[in-house]
Amino acid sequence: MRRIKLVVDYVGTRYHGWQVQPGKDTIQKRLEEALSLLCKEEINVVASGRTDSGVHAVGQVVHFDTNTEYGLVAYVRGTNNYLPDNIRVLSASVVDESFHARFSAKQKTYVYVMYQSKEERAIYANRAVRIDEIDTNAIDKACSYLLGEHDFASFMSSGSDVKTTVRTVYRAELIKKDGLYEFYICANGFLYNMVRKIVASLLRVGVGKMSVVEFRERVENPDINSLPYVAPAEGLYLLNVEY
Amino acid sequence: MRRIKLVVDYVGTRYHGWQVQPGKDTIQKRLEEALSLLCKEEINVVASGRTDSGVHAVGQVVHFDTNTEYGLVAYVRGTNNYLPDNIRVLSASVVDESFHARFSAKQKTYVYVMYQSKEERAIYANRAVRIDEIDTNAIDKACSYLLGEHDFASFMSSGSDVKTTVRTVYRAELIKKDGLYEFYICANGFLYNMVRKIVASLLRVGVGKMSVVEFRERVENPDINSLPYVAPAEGLYLLNVEY
Repeated sequence: MRRIKLVVDYVGTRYHGWQVQPGKDTIQKRLEEALSLLCKEEINVVASGRTDSGVHAVGQVVHFDTNTEYGLVAYVRGTNNYLPDNIRVLSASVVDESFHARFSAKQKTYVYVMYQSKEERAIYANRAVRIDEIDTNAIDKACSYLLGEHDFASFMSSGSDVKTTVRTVYRAELIKKDGLYEFYICANGFLYNMVRKIVASLLRVGVGKMSVVEFRERVENPDINSLPYVAPAEGLYLLNVEY
Repeated sequence: MRRIKLVVDYVGTRYHGWQVQPGKDTIQKRLEEALSLLCKEEINVVASGRTDSGVHAVGQVVHFDTNTEYGLVAYVRGTNNYLPDNIRVLSASVVDESFHARFSAKQKTYVYVMYQSKEERAIYANRAVRIDEIDTNAIDKACSYLLGEHDFASFMSSGSDVKTTVRTVYRAELIKKDGLYEFYICANGFLYNMVRKIVASLLRVGVGKMSVVEFRERVENPDINSLPYVAPAEGLYLLNVEY
């Protein structure tokens, strides 16, 4: 028995999110089916975390245990033979059995992609979110309040069961390039809908519907479900996971 | 009767190219259906040029004649109501009846998008083309030979009926950013498959299968169908058309 770590990317548009659910087409289901065919045994995969319906991944990390002893390239290309082209295994490595895709993760980075346009654009459909003109200085200032250790309960949707809502944010930065706005956020962990709630609030700051002061207060005075706004799933990409 | 100019973008993946063909789902068909519903009359559109199956557009330009006198925003949003989200009208303007989307075009720019990776990536499926490592210096040199007026017959697929195979290239440039390689080419017109044949040859130069000298000879010694290589449609985007 050995443990294999995979890096996987996917376009989440056509799936009901990462996690296996009865009767639904999910990314985990597709990956487990492909790996089970390749390994000729039932394979269960553990991911660094779920992604919701419509959310994409550039570098999701998963692990699984197998009795097979294929060369590493087989776990990449052999699996890809059984996958649709909107899910791809990018690399494989053998890891110690103490490695756990979820519990060993030290930090994760997400990017949320937006474009400024009066009209919705076909080339960004399901891949990025249309926004109006925004005050990037105000957003930059709001971003600075996210850095460090905070209780992010204000930016969590209820319904999740977590021991603590305290997380440490290492990076929160809006970058503009070629007409796209990319919001990068790196933290030691994320609460349910945390990135999408932060983005929704930052965009409200950017169009003047929320002051930078109020944003800061939401960070400093944690209150679950105090912010009902959730940015659409289609702009969100899990960029990478560090161990 | 007045003539309306539209700027349109689309993801070509699911269509049999631009042009109406019996029994096929095409972008022109979808756009004409949407405009005919909006205008309550049969609308025929003329584009700056066809795009092949799988090719995308960021700024395709079309014109059509109509008896309607809607406000311009109606031709944008009204049409979009009848279109799938992989085809969008971005803007509309009233133009003189001497304006012709194809014949009035002064120059067009295409971009061909590639990414360097050992494995194919889901997030670029149908949107960009995987390549191996390339010698960008050799490609830059080859690009310089494309500039100016040349007979580009070597870079045309047969089967097209054109008066002349002479075209003037104003820009031919490979730009690397964020792991993507984007090849921009601007000219006063393009032959059938010209961009895809140029890209295929440039990539052969980039991996050492064609010398820069041979590339230059192909430009200087026009010979239809002397180069069988055609880069895949999915990396190609019609970026804009200038009048």
